[in-house]
Amino acid sequence: MVVEFIEEYYKNIEKYPVQSQVQPGFLSSKLPKTPPYYPEPLEDILKDVTDTIIPGLTHWQSPNFFAYFQANVSNAGFLGEMLCSGFNVVGFNWISSPAATELESLVMDWMGKLLKLPSSFLFSGTGGGVLHGSTCEAIVCTLAAARDKALQTIGWDKITKLIIYASDQTHSTLFKGARLIGIPSSNIRNLPTSFSTGFSLSPQILSDTIDNDIKFGFYPLFLCATVGTTACGAVDPIKELAEIAKGYNLWFHIDAAYAGSACICPEFRHYLDGVESADSLSMNPHKWLLTNMDCCCLWIKRPNLLVDSLSSEAEFLKNAVSESKAIIDYKDWQIALSRRFKALKLWIVIRRHGLANLMYHIRSDISLAKRFESFVRNDKRFEIVVPRKFALVCFRLKPRNGTNDGRELNTQLLAAVNQSGRAFLTHGLAGGYFIRCAIGSTLTEERHVDELWKLIQETAQTVSC
Amino acid sequence: MVVEFIEEYYKNIEKYPVQSQVQPGFLSSKLPKTPPYYPEPLEDILKDVTDTIIPGLTHWQSPNFFAYFQANVSNAGFLGEMLCSGFNVVGFNWISSPAATELESLVMDWMGKLLKLPSSFLFSGTGGGVLHGSTCEAIVCTLAAARDKALQTIGWDKITKLIIYASDQTHSTLFKGARLIGIPSSNIRNLPTSFSTGFSLSPQILSDTIDNDIKFGFYPLFLCATVGTTACGAVDPIKELAEIAKGYNLWFHIDAAYAGSACICPEFRHYLDGVESADSLSMNPHKWLLTNMDCCCLWIKRPNLLVDSLSSEAEFLKNAVSESKAIIDYKDWQIALSRRFKALKLWIVIRRHGLANLMYHIRSDISLAKRFESFVRNDKRFEIVVPRKFALVCFRLKPRNGTNDGRELNTQLLAAVNQSGRAFLTHGLAGGYFIRCAIGSTLTEERHVDELWKLIQETAQTVSC
Repeated sequence: MVVEFIEEYYKNIEKYPVQSQVQPGFLSSKLPKTPPYYPEPLEDILKDVTDTIIPGLTHWQSPNFFAYFQANVSNAGFLGEMLCSGFNVVGFNWISSPAATELESLVMDWMGKLLKLPSSFLFSGTGGGVLHGSTCEAIVCTLAAARDKALQTIGWDKITKLIIYASDQTHSTLFKGARLIGIPSSNIRNLPTSFSTGFSLSPQILSDTIDNDIKFGFYPLFLCATVGTTACGAVDPIKELAEIAKGYNLWFHIDAAYAGSACICPEFRHYLDGVESADSLSMNPHKWLLTNMDCCCLWIKRPNLLVDSLSSEAEFLKNAVSESKAIIDYKDWQIALSRRFKALKLWIVIRRHGLANLMYHIRSDISLAKRFESFVRNDKRFEIVVPRKFALVCFRLKPRNGTNDGRELNTQLLAAVNQSGRAFLTHGLAGGYFIRCAIGSTLTEERHVDELWKLIQETAQTVSC
Repeated sequence: MVVEFIEEYYKNIEKYPVQSQVQPGFLSSKLPKTPPYYPEPLEDILKDVTDTIIPGLTHWQSPNFFAYFQANVSNAGFLGEMLCSGFNVVGFNWISSPAATELESLVMDWMGKLLKLPSSFLFSGTGGGVLHGSTCEAIVCTLAAARDKALQTIGWDKITKLIIYASDQTHSTLFKGARLIGIPSSNIRNLPTSFSTGFSLSPQILSDTIDNDIKFGFYPLFLCATVGTTACGAVDPIKELAEIAKGYNLWFHIDAAYAGSACICPEFRHYLDGVESADSLSMNPHKWLLTNMDCCCLWIKRPNLLVDSLSSEAEFLKNAVSESKAIIDYKDWQIALSRRFKALKLWIVIRRHGLANLMYHIRSDISLAKRFESFVRNDKRFEIVVPRKFALVCFRLKPRNGTNDGRELNTQLLAAVNQSGRAFLTHGLAGGYFIRCAIGSTLTEERHVDELWKLIQETAQTVSC
């Protein structure tokens, strides 16, 4: 019944307004405020899902969803989730389900090979990888490993002197993660970027800032570079940043949450050049690689540093195999003790598609983005704000002659497009305000991009005059 | 095909050795080390799952699984996971899927009402709740909220002076969480418990320790009490501890991960008496309340403190509704930005069972545990080590006359039982070494408990003579 229900949902998905149009508090008037004493039939529950939940969804799987970054799905990913939920094993240590641990190690090496990572990040080499639920979790864990390694030498009371570096385009998750592990907000260096460098982190600004911090008695700890920033898809210069990180003995993390997936294609792999000098790297197959939520890959060169920070000793978890150190206990590679068997999902996604089809998937999204970009370029009222690298197009209505009303105009345009229910986009800031068109929902085809552009053109007439 | 595959798995589940009997490294010889270039048929993948993955699973859903705590499943939970994965919405803020946010708030109030929590923890009152993936995440977030509130007054450099209190029976997750948020390990007070108090935290020892810490210039920050400890199911005295926490202005968290579920039954609710004085409470429906992984409930009296610590400001997330503060953006109540629509699952579990059947489920597990306990009591070779409160029975073979070989004997017994493949149990430490029989897997019936006891009796003959 639920399989058919989901099938029906996908059949109708284009009929729903992409961004939910309900008002705050809509649900409380429609569903009982107290739990039932007696069981209810599934039919009643599914009716409520249809009548109440679906109207309150913003449809991430709609082919007209162009907001945030996409959250790809696939049959393979869905089946993987079903198996994961069906087995419902909790593989916190090796003995609690050896296959969960060993398949995860295997699939992390597979994914690493798809990205042509150096063997220093793979189990078949000298490193290793783990599946987390989110980039934030991956960053919290690497930050903690870096912090503990540093404080072991200089003493825990220096925690207030540790400094984190990243560009002002870096995902807010880094700043949240740094604060979470006890580093004061004032120690987070949000370095300015500009149009001239495509909003990527300037090595010169970075090294100047580090020098200044050292002069004032701080301890430079951690550098986060991004491959495909959220606002505009910028790529930080990995190679040059790696040099600086090495020179100052910083932990160097690469956040490739979005654009990491594109790097499975040879023509995009160069964005990861220099990765061999990083300490850790994360990317999210749950964004652009057909893997249903949640799935974030983290590779690390020295897994022992992660384990030093995150291991826990509990009597009930002790067992001979763990003590032999011949195996991995993934509980020591993550925040939580418990964990789902997510590796099954990523393994099935890779097998069902093969590298060939995964590359096809990335390339067809990028070709749709190029198509949209050319529409923008061919309409004199509009402009591309930041050069496109992947499948994210940053554009805006040009301000009217002699005015500075770009933000006003584009806010209006965006709101009108979203309120139409026919598409959902968001905005970004890099230099100025612009509209983000993030192409890559699993079901998006040429006709959806064409219709989106028609909608934007029509709507622009109502706001710009 | 996958639905049938899972059906087949459950049909055969009793045939598999409960604890996987594979050797470390078993998988790497059976599966290719490199990802495929071309897609593979689902049939081949499912064949590999049957031939390679299933033998490497420790079968948490086997009715003969008595280890750790159970990870309950149900059809309702599974269907909830299917819908969650089918919609695949990412409800990090209200507009990204209003129904995901509002259903979560509703179901947190439902669950709170099932536990008869005071309105100070409910949205319909003055508090609120959120679904996390694990207790560790819930504890990290509350610890961070407590830390930030304290450091705002006394200055961030005092982070090394903050002290965390809990009993030596408290789950290791607290200590891991405290270290993660930047509190040195030496500031975590692991207070001794003993048989005389049923291994619960002694209010006297707690207040003496706090007084001593204050004398030495430390800042008492956080007290964690447990309702149903992992090793032996002990319950800390909530009311008395709450008094102390209040007196010293400590953040008081109750970890009811395991036994919280039992508190939906009136006869067990008294274990939560005093909860009205706590600051936060967590419990895991993914353990004992028929909810497939993962699902942890966290309630908090002052949600604004959580938001103060965990909010992130990113331009692409800004929107008019969030700025109105009329809604909840759950990204500010958790570690990660992204999140799955887990509320759907818990909502369906409660509706499909109703309070009536959820209570029946808890009571029937406890009655099985009583049955097992009486078997132990009626065999003179064995003894109950810690009085049973819920569905966890802690027992051991008595040491032989005049010897102190309890650990040796029971280690042998446990290993032999587990190696038989017919059941899987683990051990605990509280006072001395004992075997834990955690009853409560969804499929466990009377006959499995009877067979378990027969197995233990038979095996005992081979190790004790």
